[in-house]
Order: sequence, then structure tokens, then C-alpha cells
Amino acid sequence: MSAQQIADFFPVEGVRIASVDAGVSRHERDDVALFEIAAGGSAAALFTRNAFCAAPVTLAREHIAQRAPRYLVINSGNANAGMGSRGLADAATCCRAVADATGVAQEEILPFSTGVIGEPLPVDRIASRIPELLQGLRGDRWPDAARAIMTTDTRPKLRSLRRDLGAREITLTGIAKGSGMIRPDLATLLVFLATDAAVDKVLLERLLNDAVEGSFNRITIDGDTSTNDSCILLATGRSGVSVAADTPECAEFAGMLNEVCRTLALEIVRDGEGATKFIEIEVVRGRDAAECRRVAYTVAESPLVKTAMFASDANWGRILAAVGRAGVDALDVGRVSIDLGDVRIVDRGERDAGYTEERGAAVMRGPEIRVRIDLDRGDATDTVWTSDLSHDYVRINAEYRT
Amino acid sequence: MSAQQIADFFPVEGVRIASVDAGVSRHERDDVALFEIAAGGSAAALFTRNAFCAAPVTLAREHIAQRAPRYLVINSGNANAGMGSRGLADAATCCRAVADATGVAQEEILPFSTGVIGEPLPVDRIASRIPELLQGLRGDRWPDAARAIMTTDTRPKLRSLRRDLGAREITLTGIAKGSGMIRPDLATLLVFLATDAAVDKVLLERLLNDAVEGSFNRITIDGDTSTNDSCILLATGRSGVSVAADTPECAEFAGMLNEVCRTLALEIVRDGEGATKFIEIEVVRGRDAAECRRVAYTVAESPLVKTAMFASDANWGRILAAVGRAGVDALDVGRVSIDLGDVRIVDRGERDAGYTEERGAAVMRGPEIRVRIDLDRGDATDTVWTSDLSHDYVRINAEYRT
Repeated sequence: MSAQQIADFFPVEGVRIASVDAGVSRHERDDVALFEIAAGGSAAALFTRNAFCAAPVTLAREHIAQRAPRYLVINSGNANAGMGSRGLADAATCCRAVADATGVAQEEILPFSTGVIGEPLPVDRIASRIPELLQGLRGDRWPDAARAIMTTDTRPKLRSLRRDLGAREITLTGIAKGSGMIRPDLATLLVFLATDAAVDKVLLERLLNDAVEGSFNRITIDGDTSTNDSCILLATGRSGVSVAADTPECAEFAGMLNEVCRTLALEIVRDGEGATKFIEIEVVRGRDAAECRRVAYTVAESPLVKTAMFASDANWGRILAAVGRAGVDALDVGRVSIDLGDVRIVDRGERDAGYTEERGAAVMRGPEIRVRIDLDRGDATDTVWTSDLSHDYVRINAEYRT
Repeated sequence: MSAQQIADFFPVEGVRIASVDAGVSRHERDDVALFEIAAGGSAAALFTRNAFCAAPVTLAREHIAQRAPRYLVINSGNANAGMGSRGLADAATCCRAVADATGVAQEEILPFSTGVIGEPLPVDRIASRIPELLQGLRGDRWPDAARAIMTTDTRPKLRSLRRDLGAREITLTGIAKGSGMIRPDLATLLVFLATDAAVDKVLLERLLNDAVEGSFNRITIDGDTSTNDSCILLATGRSGVSVAADTPECAEFAGMLNEVCRTLALEIVRDGEGATKFIEIEVVRGRDAAECRRVAYTVAESPLVKTAMFASDANWGRILAAVGRAGVDALDVGRVSIDLGDVRIVDRGERDAGYTEERGAAVMRGPEIRVRIDLDRGDATDTVWTSDLSHDYVRINAEYRT
């Protein structure tokens, strides 16, 4: 399940990338990236459902509704959120700087920001570096972009696939960032995906929706949905391979897309702020997926479950308590069973007869913990991935702005 | 708002208490308490809504539906939850031990437990100490009981009032425990209240409901609703003062009850696991109380808000992001304003023009922080109290069973 090496990727024909250290973040590393997309492609995007969405989200949503994007201008270190009309003006200034330098329409440029909320975007620092970024555009700079979009991430996240689709091969490459304020609702904070397949916008949107539902919309670090979540999928068409709905090629392409999204999403969980454990919560035999998802999220976001995981303590009573408060209608607790890895801990509502602390502890010591909750009241299933709650989570978030 | 000294309380005529160290918890302190209630009184109780309620909750609920209680038998150190039929048998054994020694019916005895979930209750240790407990019963042992019911609490919680009701005075005294797994839903983990007023059961239940709604049901430490939450109000009638519905005496009594519950609830927040800050989240001008409450809880339970509070960092963007994801229907973020203490931080959706980091930091440095969120879309209000998320929260919960 682990992501490939950051150096191990396939460029996407029709996409060129550059990045610079513009001094937007307080770190000495690249913090602005520019994507150039060849004309003639299509794009799909998903954005945060947080009512307080950031200015770049508002603008990107407007722009992509009008035109296929030709450039993405992305900064880390500042979210440009909660800044009202000034924030919108600043996001527009970034777009205009690219438009002025390239001659494309402003609506063909999508802005993205991530970082501290509520501080003015140092827009001049970004705008003044656009000419340099344009000169630096290259097809092989995906790893640079993956690093430039990082905030509290400890490592860049990249996934790239190349597969034959019929007689010709296509490429799908994506990067993501995110480590805290992660409980995506539609899409997580900054995911950029591109393929050289040709896919029309309607189909592209449907495929992206499906892939995100099974990946970014199933992870949580801390239950906090960000103001800036954005996920974009570009299709340049440069491979010469067209993907049409309801074809074997479409199924294959959807599989690639799901794999890239799933890998990036799980990488985000593994790199969750302060994370020492990777935790999968699978809820099976619920009445519908919605109740499975609710149970899974309630367990995944319980601070008591998360601290027990951090301590490698098989305190299964906390899991049971979280299941019990998840608000499942008419839950018969006498039918609920819970497994920790291969060890049954709760059998039909009570501690399993064969359970011992030693067996539970053996599972908990591993870096990856799988919790399986069987509701025994239907056929639905859902899975959520999360991380533990460690001393470092508190340290990172207490010190974030200092 | 702070609770009175633990030594400063009024006994309640008709209630006697004893406690012993029965070795149920791993601490060297009293961990079993027995309450004796004189015949002829009434009682009201509220219990957890967690579907996985503990065995003593199941039994206490059954018993109080049949008879007014004559004894409460309470242990800390073990929740007797998640133990299935064995748990129910163990809780019944505790009740039977008291019934056998006193001659009252088993249904007149209510069991309560708090502590680790999922371990067998050492029932013999409790049952064997019942004769000693009965011999030790005294009216002035409220502080001992307040200590005996503690788990991760760092201090006992007691509130006691004596007031004139018409020509005669009545007493209302209560104790509570709770420090983690605190997001009560109907009642919090172990609250025992008693008055010497005479109040019929129906009225007593209504008054308790109202008082709990404005107190224990408005606090959260970690969003985890316990399996053992129980709140009981005893009315012995021994003062000779009767409280009837819709009388000035009833209003006075309700005021006393609200004050005791509110004080105990806020004491629980102040003593929240690892708490270094006391935080009030007030949401005003919502369409209805439900949406105000949802916003308040979303902010109160955001790990990012809580770690910023711990760091005394006026990171108001995190508050704003939490408001934005609270799921308020058609929220117009351009009308939302947020005050931190007396400092306006967000004015109609954006950073207030007069806001400075210094002004925000001045509020954050205090031990009590008040957040006021104005939705500007109605007349409803609600308030929730919480604590911050500190290094000690993680330490306490990672080490809880070790």
C-alpha cells in the first residue's frame, strides 16, 4: 500500500511544472508552484464543503465552470481564507499576473492556497515570481511541486501509473498534501492529478467523484474539514487515447484513478500530524453504508480510541463505547462483534471468551492496526482510515504559528 | 463560578453515606460508597444514551422504574461495561449483598460503576464490605463519597445549598465525578444529588431534566459519551417542606437545582483531563437552539481549536473553519462575527479591521476564555463549555491502564 519513491514517476504529456521559494511560508523551501496545461484538454474539480471556503476556492470554482484551465498557481504557507473581499482580490491578482505574462484569459487560471488561515496573502511575492516560474516550466518537476505544496507534511506524496489502454499506453500522475485539518468532505486539501488520456468533462467529473468517495472522503486525521480542500484532475488527451463512458478502457482508467487516489489518501493518513500508527476502521454488515460510515468515523475520531492506539493499549472498551454513541438507530448491541487484527475482542456484545490482554497487545504493537466492527444487521460495508493521537499532534498544533 | 470547598457543605436529612477502600481501583483510596436513603422519599434519574450502556445502568434503570431507592452502591475503578450477562449478574450480586444485609427489596437498591470498561468487576471485594459500609453510615460523609467516586478526576466535586423556602429551609447537596469520556447525552458520569424537600416523582423528573439540559448536557471534554453516565436526584422530604409544581417554591427549588448542576458541570470541565483552560463557547442569533448547539459543539470539540487554546494562540482561523464545517443549513458566512473575550476577531465573515495579534493574545493568556459566535440569522442562543487539548490529555489517556 505504500507510495512509490518520490523520484519514481511518469511525466504527463501536456503538463509542465515549475516551483520557487517565494518567501510565502516561513520555511526555506519552494512554496509556490505553477502548472501549465496544454490547450485542448478537459478538467474536473472538487472543492471543500466548508461554508467558510477560502478565496482561491471561490475563484477556482468560478473559473473552472467557465473554461478548461491552462494554468494552476499554487502556494503553501498561507491559506488566503477568512480574508473577505481582500482575499478574493489577492487570489485574482495571482491569476492576473499569470494571464498578463502568458496572454491566456484570467478564467483559464485556477488559484490554490494552503497554510495559515486569516493572514493576508503576500501577493506581490507571488506575482513578481511568475516570469521566473514560466521560464522554469518542465515536464519532470512533479516531485518539486509535491514538495512546494507541503505545510506540516513531513514528506511529499506522489503516485504515478502508466498502463496500456488497448493498443497504447496512458499515464496518470498525482500529488497531494495534507497532514492536519483533515476530514475531507468532497475532497482534501490540495490534490493535483493529471492524465494524458482524453476524457470528456462530464465523464471526468463522474470518475473523479467516485474515486474521491473511496479515498479522500474516507480519511480523517482530526475531524477538522479544511477551508481550502481542492482536488483537480486534468486530462490533456496528448496520449491520443480516448476514454469513453461504459467501455473497457473506462473501467481500466477508473481503476488507475482509484488506485492513485487511494494511495495518496492513505499516504496522507500515514503522514498525519504526529501519527505513529496507521489505523483502518472497517464496519461490516450494517443496514446501509451511511450508518457504517457514521460508526467508522465515530470510532476513528474518538480521542480516547486514538490515545489508546498511540499507547499500543488494547483498550477495546473505548472502541465499544464509541460504537455505542454513534447514533445508530435501534442498534442491538448483543449482535455487535469487534476484531482487532485477527483477534476477536468483542463477540456479540461482550468480551470474547478467548480474548486475553496479551493477544490484544500483540496486535496493538504493530504500526498498522485494523479494526473490524460487525453490526450483524445488514449487508452494507464502509471503511475509514485514520491515525493515532500522540504527544506530537499536540506539540505540532500548539506550535503551528510560533 | 468556582465550587465551594469540599469541607463546606450541608448534610441532607434522610441521607447517610459510607465509603471504603475495597481494592477495586488500583489507587490506595476509597473506591466503594454506599448511600442510604430514608423510606418515604422520591427519586428521579437520567442515564446515558450510549447504546452500549453498562450493566449497572441497565439494572438501575429497571429498579428505579419499580421502586423508590433505599440504597445506592457505587464503585470506581471498574465500569462493569461490555461484560454481557456476567456484568448484569455482577451488578445484581452487589444489590443482593445490600438487600441481604438490610432486608430491603433488591429493586430498592441502585448500582453504579465507573472506571475501566471491559474488565470483570471484582464483585466479591465489594459484597464482602457491605456490613462494614452499613456500620459506617453517617450524614456528614458527602466529601468521602465525592472522593470515592473519582477516577482520573484530580479533585472531588461537591456543591451544597441551603435556602429558605417559605417559612422553612431546605437543603440541596450534590456530588459529581468525571474528567474524560465526557460528552454527556442526557446525564454525565455519576452525579448524586439529594434534597430534604418533598417533591413528587413526576415533578422531580421534570426539574432534573431541565437542570441537566442546561448543565451536564452542555459540557464536553473529548466528545466521547460514556457507557456509564448516570445522574440521580433524591428527595427525602425530611425538611417537611413540600415543593409542588407551578409554585414560587418550585421556582426557587428549580433555581437551586440549576445552580448546583451548573456548578458541578463546570467543575467537571475545569478538571477535564489535562485541562489548562476553561472555555465557554456561546453561539447567539441562530435560527434555533439546535443549530447554535451544533456550532458550539463543533468548535468545542475541534482538536485544532483545543490545541490552539492550550498554546494560548489566538488562531481564530481554526474557530472560523470549525463554524464553517458545522453543517448549518445555508449559512451566510458574510454575517458571522466572532468575539474572543472582549476582542472582536471576525466581523461579518472577515478579520475585524481593528484586530491585532496582540489583542487576541492578551485574551488567550488567561485561564478562562470566552468565545462568542454571532450567526446573525435568528434569535436563538446556546452555550457549551469545554477545556483545551494538552500534552497531559494525551499522557493521561495513553497511560490510563498502565
